[in-house]
Amino acid sequence: MEKFEIDILGCGAALPTPKRLSSTQVVNIREKIFMLDCAEGCQMALRRSRIKFNHLQAIFITHLHGDHCFGLLGLLSTLGLLGRLQELHVYAPKGLVEIFQSQIDFFCNESPYKIILHEVIASKSEVIYEDRSVEISTIPLSHRVPCCGYLLREKPTPRHIKRDAIDAFGIPKSQINNIKAGLDWESPDGEIISNNLLTLPPDPVRSYAYCTDTTYSPKIIPLIKDVTCLYHEATFSDEHALLARKTNHSTARQAGEIAKESNAGKLVIGHFSSRYNDENILLEEAQTVFPNTILASDGLKILL
Amino acid sequence: MEKFEIDILGCGAALPTPKRLSSTQVVNIREKIFMLDCAEGCQMALRRSRIKFNHLQAIFITHLHGDHCFGLLGLLSTLGLLGRLQELHVYAPKGLVEIFQSQIDFFCNESPYKIILHEVIASKSEVIYEDRSVEISTIPLSHRVPCCGYLLREKPTPRHIKRDAIDAFGIPKSQINNIKAGLDWESPDGEIISNNLLTLPPDPVRSYAYCTDTTYSPKIIPLIKDVTCLYHEATFSDEHALLARKTNHSTARQAGEIAKESNAGKLVIGHFSSRYNDENILLEEAQTVFPNTILASDGLKILL
Repeated sequence: MEKFEIDILGCGAALPTPKRLSSTQVVNIREKIFMLDCAEGCQMALRRSRIKFNHLQAIFITHLHGDHCFGLLGLLSTLGLLGRLQELHVYAPKGLVEIFQSQIDFFCNESPYKIILHEVIASKSEVIYEDRSVEISTIPLSHRVPCCGYLLREKPTPRHIKRDAIDAFGIPKSQINNIKAGLDWESPDGEIISNNLLTLPPDPVRSYAYCTDTTYSPKIIPLIKDVTCLYHEATFSDEHALLARKTNHSTARQAGEIAKESNAGKLVIGHFSSRYNDENILLEEAQTVFPNTILASDGLKILL
Repeated sequence: MEKFEIDILGCGAALPTPKRLSSTQVVNIREKIFMLDCAEGCQMALRRSRIKFNHLQAIFITHLHGDHCFGLLGLLSTLGLLGRLQELHVYAPKGLVEIFQSQIDFFCNESPYKIILHEVIASKSEVIYEDRSVEISTIPLSHRVPCCGYLLREKPTPRHIKRDAIDAFGIPKSQINNIKAGLDWESPDGEIISNNLLTLPPDPVRSYAYCTDTTYSPKIIPLIKDVTCLYHEATFSDEHALLARKTNHSTARQAGEIAKESNAGKLVIGHFSSRYNDENILLEEAQTVFPNTILASDGLKILL
């Protein structure tokens, strides 16, 4: 299977600590790196995880609260010092340009690469990025400021060739791509060989939804239906459900409910309030609703 | 002696790594904390060093290059989340307000404390901060952008009382502060007791000069004459002297020369280029000129 790997660099809430950075993840899809949020210290975490800076394609910021974007300038600046030439695209809700353009102009004025800022419409779901391997779309979330999650869905891969059948029917190399794409084969004497005899089905299409920060928001369920893996914030436990509502965050149980209703393959919870010394209380709450839940932790790697 | 303690939180040059942050130090003078530069990740380093956030009095930034100020917004924001009420003063050369005021307004708009920005004139030496314990003045440096170091000089402490002499002459408590200040004592029968008999000299006045980033700049020598401890950048070794000149940085030998000519008590070198795996080459160069030199390292504590 092609690579689809998530590195959690930081999963804390507003206050970063030496043990836990604020929100930052990178997703490696077929050796292209996509960054989700960009907290203070994330460039050091990237180095610690030995992630290749120059494979970074784009940065997607959920919202303009400091714990999701205070690492941006440092990272952009470092990429320039490292000699990056390839342009870099940064996506975030409205405010990105007003808040960051002048800073980038000031601090990265000698950078050898171009930084392109894109403001996304946080209130609707649309495809904002697409290449040969992946399609990335926004997931409208409900927070105190414009905020959206991101859904990364890999492009379908070709069917797998049955090498022995190809040889047996003497099919020339020039036809292999058509066969992989699902076409039948017509032999020189006019016989039609069904594609089913020549190939195995492609790998299933995998997807990853990154949903933070948000109040409990069931309207996202159809957007992330059948997602392979869902990351959902779980800032609070049931005990602080009122506080969750007041601050537009979710409880662990609510994260579990979103995972269950969207038929997610797996749930990862994070963005834990620093009040919880032991996050197992959050894990247990989510698992009462959705058993296949794990706790995010800084340094955790998830292979899809 | 009263406390005068320097914590080096970061001493790297432009590229921060997990092992070494960019420039940040804190100086604790009589339990007041002054921060010198404010690199990305410095709030995590503050926590790691168990430094009390709420003792922070003011932040002094040498110049507006990212490796000296990318930690500012995160720190200011965290202080607000921690409920700080006391106003905080931030000093830096011209550009501070233009670059940071709108960011502070945006990201710290719910902060319960006031942040006051002060632009200093980097090209002249003047006292910019003063309280009961310390006087802080600028040291004009020569870099690619307006840049100044900072000299922290403690206020003289009172003379030490000789308890047994005070008792022997029956001097009342109400007079102790006058005696500590150096006054003689006139006994009820008119006898003048010289202060020398009643006190010992005060502790020597200590000072710390923080000089980074700068090309070799002998004009600072009179400003830091007889400083107790000098921190001076030593980005390069002799081998890269031309590069040092080109980028307006110093070599380790030049740092040693400044320390020698200013009759510093001790020299700490830092801001090492990441090209040096072993900084002992820099240490040895500085020591050929000024033997009492040490290497800065992240986590190093220096007691004056």
